[in-house]
Amino acid sequence: MLKLFYARGSCALASHIALAEAGADYETVRIDFASGEQRKPEYLAINPKGRVPALVTDKGVLTETPAILAFVAQTHPKAGLAPLDDPFAFGRAQAFNSYLCSTVHVAHAHRPRASRWADDPAAMESMKKKVPANVHECFALIEREMFAGPWVMGANYTICDPYLYTVAGWLESDGVDIAQLPAIREHRNRMSDRPAVQRALAEQGVAAPPR
Amino acid sequence: MLKLFYARGSCALASHIALAEAGADYETVRIDFASGEQRKPEYLAINPKGRVPALVTDKGVLTETPAILAFVAQTHPKAGLAPLDDPFAFGRAQAFNSYLCSTVHVAHAHRPRASRWADDPAAMESMKKKVPANVHECFALIEREMFAGPWVMGANYTICDPYLYTVAGWLESDGVDIAQLPAIREHRNRMSDRPAVQRALAEQGVAAPPR
Repeated sequence: MLKLFYARGSCALASHIALAEAGADYETVRIDFASGEQRKPEYLAINPKGRVPALVTDKGVLTETPAILAFVAQTHPKAGLAPLDDPFAFGRAQAFNSYLCSTVHVAHAHRPRASRWADDPAAMESMKKKVPANVHECFALIEREMFAGPWVMGANYTICDPYLYTVAGWLESDGVDIAQLPAIREHRNRMSDRPAVQRALAEQGVAAPPR
Repeated sequence: MLKLFYARGSCALASHIALAEAGADYETVRIDFASGEQRKPEYLAINPKGRVPALVTDKGVLTETPAILAFVAQTHPKAGLAPLDDPFAFGRAQAFNSYLCSTVHVAHAHRPRASRWADDPAAMESMKKKVPANVHECFALIEREMFAGPWVMGANYTICDPYLYTVAGWLESDGVDIAQLPAIREHRNRMSDRPAVQRALAEQGVAAPPR
């Protein structure tokens, strides 16, 4: 059985939804960031990076959302969560997820995690100030250039969708007005209606984002 | 024929080396960051993100290093650049590359690209001050927890190796003492000796990192 380590409100929700969509045999373990559980020896033995998600498989541990998402798709091919037989289409999906992890998640992280990149409180405030504009710019680019609709890649639901949904769930707290991003908002609502999403949210004990 | 858009000194070197290792039929186009060529309409039509790398294929454009690396491996299976038939091993390689793009490249980018995340010059200076420690921490973790040796994933050279080589090429300019990272240094030297690496460096007109 697969075991997913997650924290509430983190990007691990994307992998959690993908496992539910895939019909995978999985269980979840919550890591409490508030008490620093991710930096305790027990968890560092699972993921030395001290981050979530981490997926324990019968072969070992996988980390990093894009890698876990592709793994779930490849090991559950019947779920059709990625264009596995078309390297270019698979590459487009991977490029989307890579943009989310390397640019969009990072733009967001400068609000709650500014201390990663500077020690000076004034510098952290300066970073936080720029988060709404940076995150908005990322999502505007997604809406304009990357989002095919009704799902990220077009007609077929893929591993890009739970990841976009997860990161778009942070828009309000990042000070971005989702009303200016109608396709992102529609996608978020469409995702909230899916049984697999509702299952993952219920298992984490968290609410869906506002409609 | 594949066409790779790159900038000197950028992470596009990883994709360039992978194309050379794969024996791919490719050509390269240099984008001059100093003159802002990446933000001109001609290039934004290729990659609206205004970044490199971008790989033009006969099906369309692919961006983001981890996605391009997996694509090169999948479309050139004889080169053996990734464990394509083992989703877990492939996932481990992807997790490594995802860590490079989302955490290590980002830790580095706070030196040359601090203006992405704050407008205040003092804040940018504060970010730059933390880069040596942050980048060192990433590479120490790689050396201790992720690097199997002699190649990243162990006995087999994979798409992780040109990416690690590329990012490790920034260590000196980031103020990190590579002498404290013996496995990373050995790997960098081993990479510099490979004909495909030398070909890519020559095609870009850049020098190998110091030994």
